[in-house]
Amino acid sequence: MKGEIKDILQAVKEGKMSVDDAVLKLKMHPYEDIDFAKIDLHRKIRQGNSEVIYGAGKTSDQIVKILDTMENAGQKTVLITRLSKEKADEVKKAKDINYFGEANVAVYGKFPKADGIGKVVVATGGTSDVPVAEEAAITLEVMGNEVVRLYDVGVAGLHRLMSHLEEIMDATVIIAIAGMEGALASVIGGLADCPVIAVPTSVGYGASFGGVSALLSMLNSCANAVSVVNIDNGFGAACIASRINHMDLK
Amino acid sequence: MKGEIKDILQAVKEGKMSVDDAVLKLKMHPYEDIDFAKIDLHRKIRQGNSEVIYGAGKTSDQIVKILDTMENAGQKTVLITRLSKEKADEVKKAKDINYFGEANVAVYGKFPKADGIGKVVVATGGTSDVPVAEEAAITLEVMGNEVVRLYDVGVAGLHRLMSHLEEIMDATVIIAIAGMEGALASVIGGLADCPVIAVPTSVGYGASFGGVSALLSMLNSCANAVSVVNIDNGFGAACIASRINHMDLK
Amino acid sequence: MKGEIKDILQAVKEGKMSVDDAVLKLKMHPYEDIDFAKIDLHRKIRQGNSEVIYGAGKTSDQIVKILDTMENAGQKTVLITRLSKEKADEVKKAKDINYFGEANVAVYGKFPKADGIGKVVVATGGTSDVPVAEEAAITLEVMGNEVVRLYDVGVAGLHRLMSHLEEIMDATVIIAIAGMEGALASVIGGLADCPVIAVPTSVGYGASFGGVSALLSMLNSCANAVSVVNIDNGFGAACIASRINHMDLK
Amino acid sequence: MKGEIKDILQAVKEGKMSVDDAVLKLKMHPYEDIDFAKIDLHRKIRQGNSEVIYGAGKTSDQIVKILDTMENAGQKTVLITRLSKEKADEVKKAKDINYFGEANVAVYGKFPKADGIGKVVVATGGTSDVPVAEEAAITLEVMGNEVVRLYDVGVAGLHRLMSHLEEIMDATVIIAIAGMEGALASVIGGLADCPVIAVPTSVGYGASFGGVSALLSMLNSCANAVSVVNIDNGFGAACIASRINHMDLK
Amino acid sequence: MKGEIKDILQAVKEGKMSVDDAVLKLKMHPYEDIDFAKIDLHRKIRQGNSEVIYGAGKTSDQIVKILDTMENAGQKTVLITRLSKEKADEVKKAKDINYFGEANVAVYGKFPKADGIGKVVVATGGTSDVPVAEEAAITLEVMGNEVVRLYDVGVAGLHRLMSHLEEIMDATVIIAIAGMEGALASVIGGLADCPVIAVPTSVGYGASFGGVSALLSMLNSCANAVSVVNIDNGFGAACIASRINHMDLK
Amino acid sequence: MKGEIKDILQAVKEGKMSVDDAVLKLKMHPYEDIDFAKIDLHRKIRQGNSEVIYGAGKTSDQIVKILDTMENAGQKTVLITRLSKEKADEVKKAKDINYFGEANVAVYGKFPKADGIGKVVVATGGTSDVPVAEEAAITLEVMGNEVVRLYDVGVAGLHRLMSHLEEIMDATVIIAIAGMEGALASVIGGLADCPVIAVPTSVGYGASFGGVSALLSMLNSCANAVSVVNIDNGFGAACIASRINHMDLK
Amino acid sequence: MKGEIKDILQAVKEGKMSVDDAVLKLKMHPYEDIDFAKIDLHRKIRQGNSEVIYGAGKTSDQIVKILDTMENAGQKTVLITRLSKEKADEVKKAKDINYFGEANVAVYGKFPKADGIGKVVVATGGTSDVPVAEEAAITLEVMGNEVVRLYDVGVAGLHRLMSHLEEIMDATVIIAIAGMEGALASVIGGLADCPVIAVPTSVGYGASFGGVSALLSMLNSCANAVSVVNIDNGFGAACIASRINHMDLK
Amino acid sequence: MKGEIKDILQAVKEGKMSVDDAVLKLKMHPYEDIDFAKIDLHRKIRQGNSEVIYGAGKTSDQIVKILDTMENAGQKTVLITRLSKEKADEVKKAKDINYFGEANVAVYGKFPKADGIGKVVVATGGTSDVPVAEEAAITLEVMGNEVVRLYDVGVAGLHRLMSHLEEIMDATVIIAIAGMEGALASVIGGLADCPVIAVPTSVGYGASFGGVSALLSMLNSCANAVSVVNIDNGFGAACIASRINHMDLK
Repeated sequence: MKGEIKDILQAVKEGKMSVDDAVLKLKMHPYEDIDFAKIDLHRKIRQGNSEVIYGAGKTSDQIVKILDTMENAGQKTVLITRLSKEKADEVKKAKDINYFGEANVAVYGKFPKADGIGKVVVATGGTSDVPVAEEAAITLEVMGNEVVRLYDVGVAGLHRLMSHLEEIMDATVIIAIAGMEGALASVIGGLADCPVIAVPTSVGYGASFGGVSALLSMLNSCANAVSVVNIDNGFGAACIASRINHMDLK
Repeated sequence: MKGEIKDILQAVKEGKMSVDDAVLKLKMHPYEDIDFAKIDLHRKIRQGNSEVIYGAGKTSDQIVKILDTMENAGQKTVLITRLSKEKADEVKKAKDINYFGEANVAVYGKFPKADGIGKVVVATGGTSDVPVAEEAAITLEVMGNEVVRLYDVGVAGLHRLMSHLEEIMDATVIIAIAGMEGALASVIGGLADCPVIAVPTSVGYGASFGGVSALLSMLNSCANAVSVVNIDNGFGAACIASRINHMDLK
Repeated sequence: MKGEIKDILQAVKEGKMSVDDAVLKLKMHPYEDIDFAKIDLHRKIRQGNSEVIYGAGKTSDQIVKILDTMENAGQKTVLITRLSKEKADEVKKAKDINYFGEANVAVYGKFPKADGIGKVVVATGGTSDVPVAEEAAITLEVMGNEVVRLYDVGVAGLHRLMSHLEEIMDATVIIAIAGMEGALASVIGGLADCPVIAVPTSVGYGASFGGVSALLSMLNSCANAVSVVNIDNGFGAACIASRINHMDLK
Repeated sequence: MKGEIKDILQAVKEGKMSVDDAVLKLKMHPYEDIDFAKIDLHRKIRQGNSEVIYGAGKTSDQIVKILDTMENAGQKTVLITRLSKEKADEVKKAKDINYFGEANVAVYGKFPKADGIGKVVVATGGTSDVPVAEEAAITLEVMGNEVVRLYDVGVAGLHRLMSHLEEIMDATVIIAIAGMEGALASVIGGLADCPVIAVPTSVGYGASFGGVSALLSMLNSCANAVSVVNIDNGFGAACIASRINHMDLK
Repeated sequence: MKGEIKDILQAVKEGKMSVDDAVLKLKMHPYEDIDFAKIDLHRKIRQGNSEVIYGAGKTSDQIVKILDTMENAGQKTVLITRLSKEKADEVKKAKDINYFGEANVAVYGKFPKADGIGKVVVATGGTSDVPVAEEAAITLEVMGNEVVRLYDVGVAGLHRLMSHLEEIMDATVIIAIAGMEGALASVIGGLADCPVIAVPTSVGYGASFGGVSALLSMLNSCANAVSVVNIDNGFGAACIASRINHMDLK
Repeated sequence: MKGEIKDILQAVKEGKMSVDDAVLKLKMHPYEDIDFAKIDLHRKIRQGNSEVIYGAGKTSDQIVKILDTMENAGQKTVLITRLSKEKADEVKKAKDINYFGEANVAVYGKFPKADGIGKVVVATGGTSDVPVAEEAAITLEVMGNEVVRLYDVGVAGLHRLMSHLEEIMDATVIIAIAGMEGALASVIGGLADCPVIAVPTSVGYGASFGGVSALLSMLNSCANAVSVVNIDNGFGAACIASRINHMDLK
Repeated sequence: MKGEIKDILQAVKEGKMSVDDAVLKLKMHPYEDIDFAKIDLHRKIRQGNSEVIYGAGKTSDQIVKILDTMENAGQKTVLITRLSKEKADEVKKAKDINYFGEANVAVYGKFPKADGIGKVVVATGGTSDVPVAEEAAITLEVMGNEVVRLYDVGVAGLHRLMSHLEEIMDATVIIAIAGMEGALASVIGGLADCPVIAVPTSVGYGASFGGVSALLSMLNSCANAVSVVNIDNGFGAACIASRINHMDLK
Repeated sequence: MKGEIKDILQAVKEGKMSVDDAVLKLKMHPYEDIDFAKIDLHRKIRQGNSEVIYGAGKTSDQIVKILDTMENAGQKTVLITRLSKEKADEVKKAKDINYFGEANVAVYGKFPKADGIGKVVVATGGTSDVPVAEEAAITLEVMGNEVVRLYDVGVAGLHRLMSHLEEIMDATVIIAIAGMEGALASVIGGLADCPVIAVPTSVGYGASFGGVSALLSMLNSCANAVSVVNIDNGFGAACIASRINHMDLK
């Protein structure tokens, strides 16, 4: 960034840019005042993530338009999260998206090759946690990660988890997803030697309080390398995991 | 109880008791309006527990007097819970109590022989949970149970727990005591085939909220046979465990 | 379990099993990596419970398939919990299940004979708590327990409870189910001499906070032998009660 | 009050009071801008309570001065609440107060004769609730009520409560004071036919959350005539009870 | 009650009743094991309230049957609370009830004459609180109280409240109903010299948390004679108010 | 107000008004006991706000009638808040209102000229916060303020906010609207030198708890001049901002 | 600010400043990387507040050093908040500060002349709220505002508040400070026509939850122009009030 | 691990190990039943962290003994966390530890060379957060990471943060530590392109609720790569950061 400021100043010094233009440029850069789509194009550079459209608050028309803009800008793969079946069907009429119903996400364009350091394990306590897990897993794949899915390995049936010890030991990052008592994160955190990202889910009833029980449990994990994201935030956990799995690119 | 009512009525019928006296007797019995100590003597019969003095709100003088009353009534073993070192020292001047500092309990009289169905396992997640565990363990021993102590077997180091699988499999009842994320109860609940009583502890900091995190975790356990008592309530858990371990006496 | 490990090692020693097969076997056993249905078949042995299908997150097709698998495996009685009327009707087309609408559970196969130590009392504070109570009662019956139902015996009308004193005194275990202020557990806990399992229900409005009021009340019970399960968790309470009522089998 | 406004206007009409004075008088009356002590003297008339000094935030000097002012104003009995032993000792040097240590209240002057409709029962669940109960009981006596104390009649030992059924049936008002699970209010509410005022106390530990458990329990009472005041607010409950017990004066 | 026990004993003494029958009678009485309707008939005597059916959890058929039973038992007026328009229409086909839609209550039979000490004021902070207020007002009228309705007199427009000062000063009891910040109870509590029963309502949004804000505000009222019932519990407040307003009958 | 009281008294003195009439007048004034519409007409004078109808709890018929009354009273501009599209369509049949769908508000009559000290900035963290922002913005315009809208300038993309530094520096008041972590208020509060009113929104999921996270964040802002209103209360924030922006009129 | 950037660029163009120096300057300005004291000196310009030292986390030595720096920089008046008596005594040895014990604040240098638009009213519900009020009042005075103190005017004694109606009507801004039920803000908000800033205090016990009850009450105020700051944050409220009272300077 | 099992089986096959010994070995390995110190020595291998002693619950004697054991086992560097000054002074008498008072940690032995991928930034919102930050920073250094400290760069003074943009852009991992509104994590998360670990601190008062406000704020961060640990858990954040910074070793 420093380089860019220098370039602008150099241009001013050499008379190639007017003072007024430079004032504008400096104020805008790297914080250009742009419309929604442009922001996302920049984000890739700034944050290393692929292009993402948060589908929840948008109409299918808006999504199609953003896809157009991104395509024109040369974007090859776009992930659309929190996209309902209904909207997906509408979008499909205009754009050839690949919809994953369980995860409520769609992918436009090709999945990139996995180019991370190793494999990312996505583990869930139960089968009801799978939608959050699939949101994480597909996000990871769109961002170029190889994913190992370990579903329904909750701690009340420890044998299910133990039989996958090898995958856990081999992982670069592990995303541990669980509702109810959320103990999965602690048990995996005690077994693995890689960073563990815990995702509490809203699965449960009564005193699970929509995920609060699992959230607190995970925050209090006595395992050392467990950090936590918001309830049901599979996408967020995947973003962090992908950054870690691409740490060699730094 | 039915028998006693019958006796009273029989006495009325036979003219051995006046109607007024019977009215009084019937209203009072089995709910006699008695002083504190008498109540406790009755409780043994009614609830099957040994004699217990809750030491927290009482002076050492009061405790000594209650011990006297109980002794005179033929009580052989008395447990005093939540008794501080200072008060214990005072009581010792008058009565030959056995004080257990870590558990803050004292025992007056002999420990009874263990006469339960089997062994009660008292397990803790960490070393900081031991005071609550010792309160449970000594209460159990005073009530005639054989106790197996498994301390510091928290789930973040699963190997510690797994190496005691045999004790867990053999137990009649298990008391699982843990603070922070409280996952111990779920893991034990998944392994054992006996009732598991979970005791959340106030051990932890920050989002453990004085035991709330562990409490919620335990209430949401996905293992089927886990029930929960109040935070730090080792005594209460022991009472339940002892009843279960003497189930053959029913 | 120890025996099984020994057998495997013996087989290796005798050359009957290759080292690689033994590695696999040991890692798998007793924690075999199996599909959902298989797990449940094993659970019976490990935890002493009957076969149970949690119906909430499953389609009627899935339920039918699991029933098939279980039947083939020789399972005689299967309980399906949290099963809606709609799904039950679908399942009925393929399998001759017995549906209990109030409890939202179905039973496939015959109820076993009651073979417990004594009777399990299921008591409720009000009539609105009955669905949770029926879930508990039928679960108990499927697991071989004789059940005494005491419904609508809440503490605001103490006479209703007192007239059933004999059943309370005779019980092996009592499940006390109540919403709102949840005082039933404490009152029963003070009268009975057996373990009491308290189930808070989400019955109530305003400051009942979906069962939190009853939950806290029950956790703070000043009666000594009361433990608590999650809000509306009739099934869980029944599992514990059944284990206690079969304590003589240990 | 209407009368007083009329008098002022009449005085204006008759030229006995200037318009300006009347403006002032009307704005001030019945809300005169007075110093602290004066307010209290008026409150008696307005609210029917005796004179009360809230001792917590005041120095012993301030309390003595207020007592002086009240005495000069003809006040015969003054209640000082939340008064520590230390401050009470200081005040005693100047004024002949009667200090009740357990309740942390002092009374200056004579107790009035009881002139209420009937008796007010003050009941507690345990002995630890007695300080709150005594604050209520002495407040009631200072306000001219006959008090019946029923302490330690908690629901876990129902016989203790049942043996006092007559006092409960006879009461004009009942103040039910309990910590922990707070079930006392519901049970008494179901037995009595008079208004019941419930006072949750901060007695308890863990999930009692400083009285919240008892508070919620009491708010959710399924008995019809139970209303609730703040945690540990024995004084407030007594004020209401006294008003009810003097209802015939309306 | 004492009288009845005496009669039984006398009958035993005189040989008119067998000992066994008396045992049964004594255990049952005054706590007879009766069906739902009978209980309610007894409650009138025990608690001084009129007959009430809680409509929420009952079918229209059940309600009609209960009305029949009550009618046969000589009950003249019955209140049905929490009754939806739909159910009311069904019930009307069989029974000539009077339905009050805003309050969701119906009255069967005639309203009794008001026979209380004085008038009960029912005040609300806003117009959205009126349904709760009407539940209270009609309950009061069914129980023989004269009601003064002061609706929409919230503290943000103090003039509306002040213009009704006379009604407030004259009341025997006041029910103060408010959502949001719930300040109405404190302001009325400071003005009135009678007991004030505060009812928080679930009116509001955001940080009103479904009535919690108003509930806490009311519990913390610095006015001395304010007690509180559950959120939206207009019926409960009316029961207490009616008892107070009939205090002269004690 | 003082003047009005004087006039009444003068009229009494001069015999132009009877004492009884004056009593009535004084009690009523400035707190006249009026119907709903009249109150609002008065509020303009008392509080300096324009005429507002809270549409949520009213039928379209009621709204039309109030508009009639206001129009007859000479009111030129009326704001209707929380008005659904359906009701707005109904009202339109009778009155020529201007409906703003995103904000759920309608305006009847002309927008006044902006006559404040300067400009009010309405900023949002994301696009989902816009409905709350538009409620604020239109309210501000109806009350005579020039509004600068800065939408979607959340802190996770700081460049978007920084490019509008000039508008922030120039503002008279800023309304900062954000859900989720609510950090916008702090960042703007650190940059601006005018009062900042923060509005938490219910936008978010999981641990945002319906706006609680943003609310707490805003209350804890380490910037000095940030005050907070209720969750989603755009209207309230606008009222305060308008008063500040018209501070020169004092 | 734009001007400053232009100047730098002009200087570069004219060769008066090197490109490297300009890069540095632009990055630093207006955000110079300075030590703690320098920041504060700048803040005055940026935010219009006087110099303030937050005393809580600092030693008396550190405070003296900062005072030295500020003095050398020409600062005339410095406010030190959250300063204990002990530290104040230490600071006094080196610097001639004016300590206000009730408010825990000290002022170094002269109070400026009041130069605001009008008067700021600081009102409290009770006497226990005065420390927070004095923190606000002295902060206001240090920032050049005339303050009117209305202490102990809580809503339970409405007459006390009403007799100060004129001050409330005349205020430019009002700071309403209250603990417990926090109703003061709503009542004042309904009477005044200026912005009202509400400060909840931690005064109270039981269900006041350290100020939460007052905080919620204030956030839910049905008066339109009430905004809220953190519990006990008198200083923050004063900063906002001062900005509003100097609105004419914009 | 698989290798080790194979070796054991091979030994059995070859007759070098008895079946009984193998059973024991297999059950023990890798979960050997060892004393506290041994566990930690193993953890290094399993989890990649340096040796750590949690000082809080241990006596100085215990700490010295553990240090002895570790030293004998060849451990070169040991970190002792949550160690008070008093205990540190005691330990120093026996062992040459290096105590860091602000962070409450001690280091025994040499700091290792930094061998991570890049630099770890530790940033705090204010100066009060520094103790938590130093716990993190020293932990990082003990684990072989180069640390860049950016303290007091809170978002209310954005210039302080912006002037360190280069360090933020260059970091491999960032630990963002803040109390109160906790917005630092979101702002840094929006600027950086590396994983951000957020640590809420208990710094603040009132509605900060001991760190809950910051915790919720961080969990709701709209920046994509922010994960969260428990309140004040600087050590935990450092463990995760160190693992990420050594990701190349996988």
